[in-house]
Amino acid sequence: MQAFSIGVDLGGTNLRAAAVTPEGERLEAVSQPTRLHAGPQTVLDDIAGAVRKLMERSGGADALVGIGVGSPGPLELPAGILHHPPNLPGFDGLHLRAELERRLGRCVSVDSDANLAAFGEHYLGAGRALGTDSLCMLTLGTGVGCGIVLEGRIWHGMQGAAGESGHGPLDPNGPLCPCGARGCLEMYASATAIVRRAGQLGLGSDSTEGNGSSGPLSASSIAELATAGDARALQVFDEMGRALGLSLANLINALDLPLYVIGGGAAAAWPLFAPRMFATVREMSYVYRLSMPDDPVVFQPGRTHIAPAQLSDAGLLGAALLPVHAHDTVA
Amino acid sequence: MQAFSIGVDLGGTNLRAAAVTPEGERLEAVSQPTRLHAGPQTVLDDIAGAVRKLMERSGGADALVGIGVGSPGPLELPAGILHHPPNLPGFDGLHLRAELERRLGRCVSVDSDANLAAFGEHYLGAGRALGTDSLCMLTLGTGVGCGIVLEGRIWHGMQGAAGESGHGPLDPNGPLCPCGARGCLEMYASATAIVRRAGQLGLGSDSTEGNGSSGPLSASSIAELATAGDARALQVFDEMGRALGLSLANLINALDLPLYVIGGGAAAAWPLFAPRMFATVREMSYVYRLSMPDDPVVFQPGRTHIAPAQLSDAGLLGAALLPVHAHDTVA
Repeated sequence: MQAFSIGVDLGGTNLRAAAVTPEGERLEAVSQPTRLHAGPQTVLDDIAGAVRKLMERSGGADALVGIGVGSPGPLELPAGILHHPPNLPGFDGLHLRAELERRLGRCVSVDSDANLAAFGEHYLGAGRALGTDSLCMLTLGTGVGCGIVLEGRIWHGMQGAAGESGHGPLDPNGPLCPCGARGCLEMYASATAIVRRAGQLGLGSDSTEGNGSSGPLSASSIAELATAGDARALQVFDEMGRALGLSLANLINALDLPLYVIGGGAAAAWPLFAPRMFATVREMSYVYRLSMPDDPVVFQPGRTHIAPAQLSDAGLLGAALLPVHAHDTVA
Repeated sequence: MQAFSIGVDLGGTNLRAAAVTPEGERLEAVSQPTRLHAGPQTVLDDIAGAVRKLMERSGGADALVGIGVGSPGPLELPAGILHHPPNLPGFDGLHLRAELERRLGRCVSVDSDANLAAFGEHYLGAGRALGTDSLCMLTLGTGVGCGIVLEGRIWHGMQGAAGESGHGPLDPNGPLCPCGARGCLEMYASATAIVRRAGQLGLGSDSTEGNGSSGPLSASSIAELATAGDARALQVFDEMGRALGLSLANLINALDLPLYVIGGGAAAAWPLFAPRMFATVREMSYVYRLSMPDDPVVFQPGRTHIAPAQLSDAGLLGAALLPVHAHDTVA
């Protein structure tokens, strides 16, 4: 009987779940829209239904190691209570963990999606490939998530809010972020920020793009324009690389980890932002210069490595691994 | 027989050592100038001599738990090798730990002065008083040191360079720091920065101070001017508080620790910089606002606390405690 665990990625748009072996092999997977409009109780029922379906298809309850659920934050941990999650309207105060445990009659581990992405990359992605014991991962999506794994454990901090470096202020005179601060990383490096900045520079408001697309701008269409040589689109990614470099400089100086991973949809633009990101880290981080690799894209043991994510769904795999490595993650 | 350990604080100006009980009671202490001009071998001999003297006076080798030495960095750990330490000219490449072990015929633990100050505050100062398990301490002196204690252990990072948040860039357009970055915390919050900024604002170049002092400006004389109401001196500490607030916002968002301690000589100006520091943390840190105390100067369990150091020589006491808690500090 093949042991497996079940991971759930509760997103604002899609609800995905997978049965995964402890080694990271995916046995079964389901995906459906997150029915936010129907309210939290329906979404909880949908999660429980997806878990039961995967359990039946993958060998039954006896082979199930555990269930892990990743959710947008802010999430009070380890209780698993949501507090005003901007991407899950109507879910404020929901006892996500307790509600799922009641429905399933089993223990459920809950953590933030950004922490679980870092956890997944540590155990199955870049961290495993490189043999590092700690990493910090920035996930560039609608916002910028961040997760920190120290010696194999997710670093949660006092209230489960550690790794909110997407809201670390980079420029106190920068644009106002919804979090209340100015010039946060999220204001420069999220998919949302890319589209906003492109609009500010006039992209999309005239017909100079020349790519034949008449739809609204997206991070990926702006990346296409940059790849084709559009100066304003290139500037957007240059500024993004500068912001990532500043944020990484702060993280590297504070934590001195062997590995920093950049993931999420907007990380696909790596070739466009990475040169400026590396130049900024070199300029701004004394600790990076102490242990700079000869070539920034080639891993050298004992040197600081910054790399794109290796998994396309680190968060889902990280959720499945959470109960497997539970003894490592209890702070 | 009272068990004791010996701590050494190797500074660029003074060499201090103390015999301390595991509970932090100081049994004996010695202090002498650091004879930098005579070269590293003489300084090593002086350290070994001070340790032997304390050993004899405090109960002999049988009662000695261990020896801990704090040094300015950068320090390669755990080997204890100095790399171009700016405050110890001529000491580059010195195997501080191995040289002392050879002279003393005993194991010696070595760490950076900023890490040991954090360690001292954790076990004997603010951390002990408040019962917290983790803290980050900024030491404001000639430069700005930083040490991070996570669950009782110093967080060293990959190469012993963690906690270099004194060189975290706060404003990418700020003044150039000797570390190569721009707008580092150290450029705003060190004693050196206070004097430089006061000079830029014209303090000391005219006779408006009215405190009768004709000597060169120092951080403490500028603090006196500010306390007396001098607008430019007040501005210096306001800017310092803003920089500390920005740096703390980044640290709080990344680590979510229960306690942040501000120590070092320049921390004596706490009443002058703290109001702006707290206002900036509130403005810039979403995680701080999640767990903000009702009154920022009153500790509440489960809330983020920012406080001045409680020990006048946290670094020396931390050095003495290092071998006592050695099992906790090996990463």
